[in-house]
Amino acid sequence: MRVAFEEARKVLAEKLEKHGVPAWQAEKVGYEMARNSLEGIYTHGLNRFERLVRNIDEGIVIPGTEPELIHSFGAMENYDGRLGLGITNALFSMSRAMELATEHGVGIVALRNTNHWLRAATYGYQAVEGGFAAMCFTNTIPNMPTWGAIDSRIGNNPFMMAFPRRNGSPIIVDSAMSQFSYGALELARLEHRTMPVDAGFDENGRLTKDPDAVIRTKRIIPTGYWKGAAMSFALDIFASALSMGASVAAVGRLDGDEHGVSQFFMAIDYRKISDEDAVDDIVEGAIADLKSSIPSDPARPIIYTGEMTGRIREENLKEGIPADEGVWQRILSL
Amino acid sequence: MRVAFEEARKVLAEKLEKHGVPAWQAEKVGYEMARNSLEGIYTHGLNRFERLVRNIDEGIVIPGTEPELIHSFGAMENYDGRLGLGITNALFSMSRAMELATEHGVGIVALRNTNHWLRAATYGYQAVEGGFAAMCFTNTIPNMPTWGAIDSRIGNNPFMMAFPRRNGSPIIVDSAMSQFSYGALELARLEHRTMPVDAGFDENGRLTKDPDAVIRTKRIIPTGYWKGAAMSFALDIFASALSMGASVAAVGRLDGDEHGVSQFFMAIDYRKISDEDAVDDIVEGAIADLKSSIPSDPARPIIYTGEMTGRIREENLKEGIPADEGVWQRILSL
Repeated sequence: MRVAFEEARKVLAEKLEKHGVPAWQAEKVGYEMARNSLEGIYTHGLNRFERLVRNIDEGIVIPGTEPELIHSFGAMENYDGRLGLGITNALFSMSRAMELATEHGVGIVALRNTNHWLRAATYGYQAVEGGFAAMCFTNTIPNMPTWGAIDSRIGNNPFMMAFPRRNGSPIIVDSAMSQFSYGALELARLEHRTMPVDAGFDENGRLTKDPDAVIRTKRIIPTGYWKGAAMSFALDIFASALSMGASVAAVGRLDGDEHGVSQFFMAIDYRKISDEDAVDDIVEGAIADLKSSIPSDPARPIIYTGEMTGRIREENLKEGIPADEGVWQRILSL
Repeated sequence: MRVAFEEARKVLAEKLEKHGVPAWQAEKVGYEMARNSLEGIYTHGLNRFERLVRNIDEGIVIPGTEPELIHSFGAMENYDGRLGLGITNALFSMSRAMELATEHGVGIVALRNTNHWLRAATYGYQAVEGGFAAMCFTNTIPNMPTWGAIDSRIGNNPFMMAFPRRNGSPIIVDSAMSQFSYGALELARLEHRTMPVDAGFDENGRLTKDPDAVIRTKRIIPTGYWKGAAMSFALDIFASALSMGASVAAVGRLDGDEHGVSQFFMAIDYRKISDEDAVDDIVEGAIADLKSSIPSDPARPIIYTGEMTGRIREENLKEGIPADEGVWQRILSL
C-alpha cells in the first residue's frame, strides 16, 4: 500500500503526542520519520516507528527533555542529551554547530546520553539548507566484530558528510561502518537473494555472500573489511571522548534496547573563507566530471552520492510512501 | 639490507639539499620520509624518495616556498601551497590548525596547490604529540573508477583520524579510499599471491582477487565498494571547495606527475571542553574492551588501529630499516 506523506507525518506526530511527547517535539520527529520513508530510507521511517514508541514507553527515551550545556569553549560545546528523543537532540546539536560556525567559521557540538538519531542524512540536509557544509557521526551498541574477531565489540557508527549544491540535490554521504545492515541481510534472505559482495563470515570462518549464514554467525563485516573496523573505532573514540559520554563498549553495558549513545556534529560556514561562485564552479565541475564516467552497465548512468534522494522523494510525494500494510495498521493502533 | 634510521634520515636530507631544498625543509622531509620506512610504511619512505627528487627536478615541487594565507575567519583559514613540498606544507597546515584550536577549541586549515604529503599519519602524530585530536584528508589524481564505472575519475583520497593516548601508541586511522593500492597489488603479483578479498574487476567485469587482472584493467575498487566511492567524492569536495583549489578532476587535467592537490586539516583541543582524566578513562576502557575480543585466529590477538606502528618502529630502530639494495644505491647516487 501507499500512504500520503502528509498523512504519515500527521499520524506519527499524533501517536507521539498520545505517548507523552510534547507537540513541538512530536511535530519534528513525525516529520523526519515520515520524510525518511518518503526519501526511500524505509528502515528508518515508518518501519522503525513502533520501536521508538516502545522505547518511550519503556522510559529509555525521555520526551520533553532538551540537551543541557556541559562545557563551552570558542567554537566547541558539549551537551548532555538527558536521554531525550534522538531526532530533536540531534537537530538541536547541528543547529548549535551552525550558530557556532556563523560566529567562528566552524562549530563542533559533542553530545552524550542521547538516543538513536534515526537517519544521519537528516542533519546533513538541515545544515545544507542553511548553507553550511557538515559532518556528523554517532556511536551505537556493539553490533559488529572488529576485523579478526568473532564477537561483536565495535559499532556500525554511521558517518555523514554533506555539502550544499546551489541547483540540485546536495552531496550527502550517509554510511554506516558495516558493509550491510542486518535489515538488508534479512530482506535479502526473505527474497532468497545473495548479497552482491561479501557480507560476513559463515560458520566455517569463510567470507560469504549468503545472508542467512551471516545472520546465523552474527559476523557481519565492516565497510572495507579492516578499514571500516579502524574507522569505526576512531569515530567511537571521537564521539565518546569529546562528549565525555559512553563509548560503544559502555553503551553495550546498559540494560535494554540501545540508548545513551554519543554523537559528534560539525558545521562549516565555508563562505566565510571562500568565494561562493568559485566554490559552485569547483563543485559543479567535479560533479560533471564524475557523471561523465563510462558506466559498466550502460543502463545505469553514474550518479553522485545523494543524487538519488531527490528522485525517490518526487516519486513518493506523487504516489505516496510505500508502506507495509501490517506496519501501518499497527502504527494506527498505537 | 638494513639501513640505520639516523643514516637514512641524514642521507635523504643531504640529497634534498643537493637538489635545491633549503636545509630547514630538507631536515624535515628527510626525517619524515625516513620515519615512514622506520614505521613500516615502506611505499612512502625510501621507496618513494627518487620520485620526490625527480618531481623537484621537473619543477612541479618547488623547494623553499611556504604556504600563503588567502582567507581567514575565526577558527578557519585557507592557504595557497604554491606547489611547495607536500610534507612541509602539510606540517605547516596542521601546526596552524593546532594554533587555531588552542584559541577556538577547533581549528581548520584548507590548503590548495600543494603536493603529495606522503603519509597521512604524519600529521596525526604531529597533532597528538601536541595533545590534539585531529582529522585530515587530501585529494589525489583520478586513480580509481567510481562505483559502477569503468574509467578512473575519483581519487583514493587518503583520510586520517588521530586521538592521543596517554600511555601507548595513539589511535591513528590512515586509510585511502581504495581497498588496495597499486603498490600492494604489484607486490602481490611479484610474490604470486592473490589478495585476501576483492581487489577490483577483471576483463569480464567480474570482481576478482587476482592482482594481475586488476592491474591490467586498472579497475581497482573503493574501500567498501560503493561506500568508499561516495566518501572519496565527498572528501574531494570538502578539500577542494574549502581551499578553493583543484578537485580530483582538475588535478587530473594538469600535465605530468600528480601535483597541485587540495587538503583539509582539523585539530581539536578537546581538553578545553573535557576533563582529561575522564577522557583517558573513556579511551582506555574502549581499548581494553576492543582487545578483549575473541580472535578468529588465536595466534593473532586483536589490536587497535595504530597499535602496530610502535612495535615495527622499535624493531626497525634496533635492526635498521629494511631497504631494497637497488633503491638505496640509487638514492646514494642522486
